[in-house]
Amino acid sequence: MKPTHIEHIGIAVNSIADAIPFYENVLGLKCYNIEEVAEQKVKTAFFMLGQTKIELLESTDPEGPVGKFIEKRGEGIHHIAFAVDGLEERLREAEEAGVRLIDQAPRTGAEGLSIAFLHPKSTFGVLTELCEDKKSKINK
Amino acid sequence: MKPTHIEHIGIAVNSIADAIPFYENVLGLKCYNIEEVAEQKVKTAFFMLGQTKIELLESTDPEGPVGKFIEKRGEGIHHIAFAVDGLEERLREAEEAGVRLIDQAPRTGAEGLSIAFLHPKSTFGVLTELCEDKKSKINK
Repeated sequence: MKPTHIEHIGIAVNSIADAIPFYENVLGLKCYNIEEVAEQKVKTAFFMLGQTKIELLESTDPEGPVGKFIEKRGEGIHHIAFAVDGLEERLREAEEAGVRLIDQAPRTGAEGLSIAFLHPKSTFGVLTELCEDKKSKINK
Repeated sequence: MKPTHIEHIGIAVNSIADAIPFYENVLGLKCYNIEEVAEQKVKTAFFMLGQTKIELLESTDPEGPVGKFIEKRGEGIHHIAFAVDGLEERLREAEEAGVRLIDQAPRTGAEGLSIAFLHPKSTFGVLTELCEDKKSKINK
């Protein structure tokens, strides 16, 4: 595979309302979208910087993945998402290369992207997301 | 401040030799530089993806910052670096906004960049680096 760019960096925070002022007032970025992803038990806030989004993640349930991450490690960088073409095929390639998959097939994530996670145990500790924006391709 | 882009993402690994094949053979990136930064007690490996570099960090000393990070948290994403213009002024702005600085003044990091770190205690758990490529500006 060859990703086209880093689509976003996911950052786990206790409260997006508390963290947004740092990103807006200190770093000078603009929060352009706040969205709840019920399936992932998170509320997300997005900032665009060049090719890459910063995605703040606030847990809506202590039993959700971000709630558990924060309980174990505190606030911090949660995952990196690489933009790819042909996500399903890229997943199969990763699997054939011996990478353990969290998602066997793509599912829908924030902003309507097709997404799938690779397990950090086979990616040297980095929770790695692959994602594809099929919607924007149809619109092109 | 308004960063121009995400300059790099720093990832702490036990061994860059072990991790490089994942980035090259699975993600399809190319390692274009390996460099030791003695002051930071790390050996680094760089990959370029769009505007942003992936910087793998292997500790050369258990007492160095990456060695301590890995001892405490294991391998994983270590920091995000934002490219800015006028680093010294940006640092003063951050300080005036109440951000705790790790580096009071810019110093030289990998690839000859001027760099300074903000303390994760005042950036919602994210070790945040600001950096400026003065060298490439002089060459322009």
